[in-house]
Amino acid sequence: MKVRERGIRIGSLPTGENNCITDVADVRVGQVTLDKPLAKGEYAATGVTAILPHAGNPFREKVAAASYVINGFGKTTGLIQLDELGVLESPIMLTNTFSVPAATEGALRWLLESTPEIGETTGTVNIVTGECNDSRLNSIRELSVTSAHAKQAIETASIEPVEEGAVGAGKGMVCFGYKGGIGTSSRLINREEPSDVFTIGCLVLSNFGARDDFAAERYMKEVTIVQPNAPKPADGSIIIVLATDAPLDNRQLKRIAKRAGVGLARTGSHYSNGSGDIVIAFSTAHKFPHDQPDAKENVQLLRDSHPVMNQLFQGAAEVTEEAILNSLSQAVDTTGRNGTTVYQAPFS
Amino acid sequence: MKVRERGIRIGSLPTGENNCITDVADVRVGQVTLDKPLAKGEYAATGVTAILPHAGNPFREKVAAASYVINGFGKTTGLIQLDELGVLESPIMLTNTFSVPAATEGALRWLLESTPEIGETTGTVNIVTGECNDSRLNSIRELSVTSAHAKQAIETASIEPVEEGAVGAGKGMVCFGYKGGIGTSSRLINREEPSDVFTIGCLVLSNFGARDDFAAERYMKEVTIVQPNAPKPADGSIIIVLATDAPLDNRQLKRIAKRAGVGLARTGSHYSNGSGDIVIAFSTAHKFPHDQPDAKENVQLLRDSHPVMNQLFQGAAEVTEEAILNSLSQAVDTTGRNGTTVYQAPFS
Amino acid sequence: MKVRERGIRIGSLPTGENNCITDVADVRVGQVTLDKPLAKGEYAATGVTAILPHAGNPFREKVAAASYVINGFGKTTGLIQLDELGVLESPIMLTNTFSVPAATEGALRWLLESTPEIGETTGTVNIVTGECNDSRLNSIRELSVTSAHAKQAIETASIEPVEEGAVGAGKGMVCFGYKGGIGTSSRLINREEPSDVFTIGCLVLSNFGARDDFAAERYMKEVTIVQPNAPKPADGSIIIVLATDAPLDNRQLKRIAKRAGVGLARTGSHYSNGSGDIVIAFSTAHKFPHDQPDAKENVQLLRDSHPVMNQLFQGAAEVTEEAILNSLSQAVDTTGRNGTTVYQAPFS
Amino acid sequence: MKVRERGIRIGSLPTGENNCITDVADVRVGQVTLDKPLAKGEYAATGVTAILPHAGNPFREKVAAASYVINGFGKTTGLIQLDELGVLESPIMLTNTFSVPAATEGALRWLLESTPEIGETTGTVNIVTGECNDSRLNSIRELSVTSAHAKQAIETASIEPVEEGAVGAGKGMVCFGYKGGIGTSSRLINREEPSDVFTIGCLVLSNFGARDDFAAERYMKEVTIVQPNAPKPADGSIIIVLATDAPLDNRQLKRIAKRAGVGLARTGSHYSNGSGDIVIAFSTAHKFPHDQPDAKENVQLLRDSHPVMNQLFQGAAEVTEEAILNSLSQAVDTTGRNGTTVYQAPFS
Repeated sequence: MKVRERGIRIGSLPTGENNCITDVADVRVGQVTLDKPLAKGEYAATGVTAILPHAGNPFREKVAAASYVINGFGKTTGLIQLDELGVLESPIMLTNTFSVPAATEGALRWLLESTPEIGETTGTVNIVTGECNDSRLNSIRELSVTSAHAKQAIETASIEPVEEGAVGAGKGMVCFGYKGGIGTSSRLINREEPSDVFTIGCLVLSNFGARDDFAAERYMKEVTIVQPNAPKPADGSIIIVLATDAPLDNRQLKRIAKRAGVGLARTGSHYSNGSGDIVIAFSTAHKFPHDQPDAKENVQLLRDSHPVMNQLFQGAAEVTEEAILNSLSQAVDTTGRNGTTVYQAPFS
Repeated sequence: MKVRERGIRIGSLPTGENNCITDVADVRVGQVTLDKPLAKGEYAATGVTAILPHAGNPFREKVAAASYVINGFGKTTGLIQLDELGVLESPIMLTNTFSVPAATEGALRWLLESTPEIGETTGTVNIVTGECNDSRLNSIRELSVTSAHAKQAIETASIEPVEEGAVGAGKGMVCFGYKGGIGTSSRLINREEPSDVFTIGCLVLSNFGARDDFAAERYMKEVTIVQPNAPKPADGSIIIVLATDAPLDNRQLKRIAKRAGVGLARTGSHYSNGSGDIVIAFSTAHKFPHDQPDAKENVQLLRDSHPVMNQLFQGAAEVTEEAILNSLSQAVDTTGRNGTTVYQAPFS
Repeated sequence: MKVRERGIRIGSLPTGENNCITDVADVRVGQVTLDKPLAKGEYAATGVTAILPHAGNPFREKVAAASYVINGFGKTTGLIQLDELGVLESPIMLTNTFSVPAATEGALRWLLESTPEIGETTGTVNIVTGECNDSRLNSIRELSVTSAHAKQAIETASIEPVEEGAVGAGKGMVCFGYKGGIGTSSRLINREEPSDVFTIGCLVLSNFGARDDFAAERYMKEVTIVQPNAPKPADGSIIIVLATDAPLDNRQLKRIAKRAGVGLARTGSHYSNGSGDIVIAFSTAHKFPHDQPDAKENVQLLRDSHPVMNQLFQGAAEVTEEAILNSLSQAVDTTGRNGTTVYQAPFS
Repeated sequence: MKVRERGIRIGSLPTGENNCITDVADVRVGQVTLDKPLAKGEYAATGVTAILPHAGNPFREKVAAASYVINGFGKTTGLIQLDELGVLESPIMLTNTFSVPAATEGALRWLLESTPEIGETTGTVNIVTGECNDSRLNSIRELSVTSAHAKQAIETASIEPVEEGAVGAGKGMVCFGYKGGIGTSSRLINREEPSDVFTIGCLVLSNFGARDDFAAERYMKEVTIVQPNAPKPADGSIIIVLATDAPLDNRQLKRIAKRAGVGLARTGSHYSNGSGDIVIAFSTAHKFPHDQPDAKENVQLLRDSHPVMNQLFQGAAEVTEEAILNSLSQAVDTTGRNGTTVYQAPFS
């Protein structure tokens, strides 16, 4: 159940149809979950989540994008080029820390197959992969994710409502000492102008926070059940992906991405030292063709000083906060390596 | 009255002795307030606030410092050099937007008088001046602040508890549609180790926020009195100054400065488009002499991975949030240009 | 004489009509030079140079802009907002280090007079002022520049070829131990497409470099004349202003600005520790109105992957290198405080 | 032959013993070269180069480090965390663009084997991998590099003089239309103080530049031999690794890293649009233990204002320029995919 169904309201803007990142038209999400015992008490409780900006080939039709590093204790790839050129040209891959190479190679192999000109008649491709450390439940040293899993996540991506909680890359993640993982939310912007309504959506991979810092404890049941696992320390990570159909460029998307930190702060995080808190934002409003002989591109952009920009800032904060809470609310008790169980947060 | 005296508790860390930035040993604050009618209905409701890192000459004995720009719709000076060299070598001056030249020149004249070698036998000096736009109450186009006012603020700086609210640079500021201005707070860090307790303090110049976004409305009285002024829009600004005696370098202080954004977010801000939300952080733990023939400097630094770092992050968030609330709680109803009055927030 | 007239060719791209920043259509430059003895052996050898992006009001019609800090030992103002919003809304003012407040206030007063809505019915204005330390020739502690000088520089700006050398802000500057100051150059880009030729121009305020590092010594006469002044150490500064009519946004202009460092490196600089080496770049291709009710702006932008972008990078490097050499070549022997004379570089 | 043996002198500082990055005490380099025909006319002309900061475990004993992105059209991993925490904790891996996952996973597997606590009782590890696109000679789409190759490069690393040219990751690289690849150089700093001499070394993976831009053409023979391959366009990449034993922190190393751009500019590059020009700098002066209970670390740091800093800047520029020229001078004619041959630059 999403937190909204539990009566918890975050912010004041209305949600999109499914309160999902896929409410942004044509955005797709695919997930592969690994959940199996390995030899010697080890356990694969991990996976891959892939986010595609549209149904086409993201290398041939790039979208405007930006990143923002809230706290850089993280191993996300691809952000240097994304910010230099201001575009995303690959799926965004999420997985566990040590599977970044496998997930990146999986996306690469998918792109090489679908795009024979890459590395042949044109240049290379820049792949964005984010990660969190799921080693409390997942035997992360076993490198269980393969490039085939990553390809599968991409190939099964759809515009359907996104499965949340202990799924895909979120399978083994822990948030505020409770089971976390994948969460998503969306908002509608500028409803005053029916002809010009925008959607902003968020998908998080949540794996951060100390129990004591959790700002949403007020929504929790007074639980007397034993929570046998020591609360995880504040360190951990969160990857936040923001998608919108509002027409924004790299500079503006970086501004939007910064506001994800507002939503994160309101859940109780103070961006702890060991946390890789990283935001990637993209806009589907314009597709930039890879091959284009013209020197110039005609682009339509939102004006920074228009009130809609502040609404987008507010929306970015709201979807991030709510996506994090959804990642907790939708998670289920999960048992992994060494028989460790992490429990769902006791929402009342 | 500070919000703590009203029973409002922000966070969990204990405050310093006076819950002021001057709880950080040797940090000094001086303020000059202008409050007088000008010709033709104009009014000077503005001022200068100066923060000194210690009692000595800040050029000859520099301190480690860093800045972080939360949102850059602001005109703060001196941050380029502060981040290149990682040190603060002037008082930090706060004033209204159009008085940045006067405040900067005042600090410059004070430094030239007290430091005859500047521009003579050694190089120049880098002055840090922050600002907010007080044009709702102050006739900002009149440029009422002079360099003499700025010098006076520096010369009267003391280690005493800081006067808050509609004072100094805060005289004409408006926050969440209520009277804002100067606020301050502090926290003690690492009390588990009595021999190694640190203090972190914050002083804000608050001038931001839409009424509807104010997260502290729950602490307000149900007021039936007329608040005749239209709520100010979200745009505005906040300058946040963090001081600590924890031994930190530029990179670490920038990490601390980022956490001020956590506190700001929790007051209800989403860093609106037109807001210059800028943080300056410094550490008094080590004084870097300007003239020193040795090639090397021995420095003691906090380890990033030590738990105290996370406490400092939490402390930075808490002092910022509480300093903002104090700036509101301590402000008084203030009347300025065109007879406009901005009222104190109706804390219950 | 410009270095080109001396037979020195920098790079391979053709120059604009006058090999000046004012070859970029409608860009204007105005300069005020101070050259007078003061009391007690002090001397005012300094000034102000103002660059305007077009003939109109820069606040009401902003242009895309970006900055890049090569080395941040400098006190330039206004870059925070310039990069947050990606636009320039004031003249770019150049002066000596301690006259930044006066030059900024002069530009402010000019804008307040010409734009009564600033600080009244709309927000404030962000002024960009760069500086170098001319204290070898100028009695910098005397603060000889006034806001009236700055206003005069703005008001006398014109599209004429720019006077170079020991003029305006360049009056007291020293470069590689020779007389430096104001220099300018331009290049034509994309001449293969006559319908789409762009111009890139540069104006520098040069005040950096150790004699031993000067890469252009090969163009110098074997001089036997006494150069009595000890060569200035490498520290110093350079402000580099790039203007173009190519359609570029903030991200792209920052890329262009970075390439100014290529030209600077080729003159012999290695961006020394005490040098404020700062680049400001703007594009006149599109004017962004301050007041505009529409949510969106239609913008035409150069594609990063088009070969013209690399030509612009090359052009940025060439105009910077040549503008620096012109600042030396056009300078004349200049005597300032304490009877100190700095001599023109002995070009053969 | 190194260019110095050809009589070409870059700069004025003396070289270290072997004019190699391994002149910095304890720095190690290992390389694995792939050179074999594949099926269907494809060819593996590629490899891996690994740089280790010292003989110990780089995770358990980290060194201060920083990165600087000259132009971000590149896929280097690990820089986010390197700059957040200011330390390097892995070998620096260099390879071709599409082998970044394999090289990263190889370094990861080496670290997991040598450091059983990673991902078990302590956190994860951040691996730095840089790349260039060698698709002119190497069948890059074949992903010929494996994680085993990467491990082998690490395990064979030594303090011996570094093999240069078409070796390791440099096997298939092309620079200014000539055969490029691995090059290295070093300088001695502060020889005025025999008790306090520092070394700065550089290793480059060169793969950039248009023939027409090559500034060293003056050292070339007038060649009438046919160079049948069309000159490669300016796009390409260079990874620049700087090592020093001077005591510097992250902020200072970033300053040093920026000066690599000076050396790059002087070879003729203007940092072209499609070039991933990325610098990684580290200091071996202090080892930061991963496990350390103390809150504080005593560190000795070079003072920014000491003249040695400017010498280090100069040294960074000189070693980068000379390492690039060495990568050309030491390369041999190399034939790869489709029978394409790239020739050594015709140094006279």
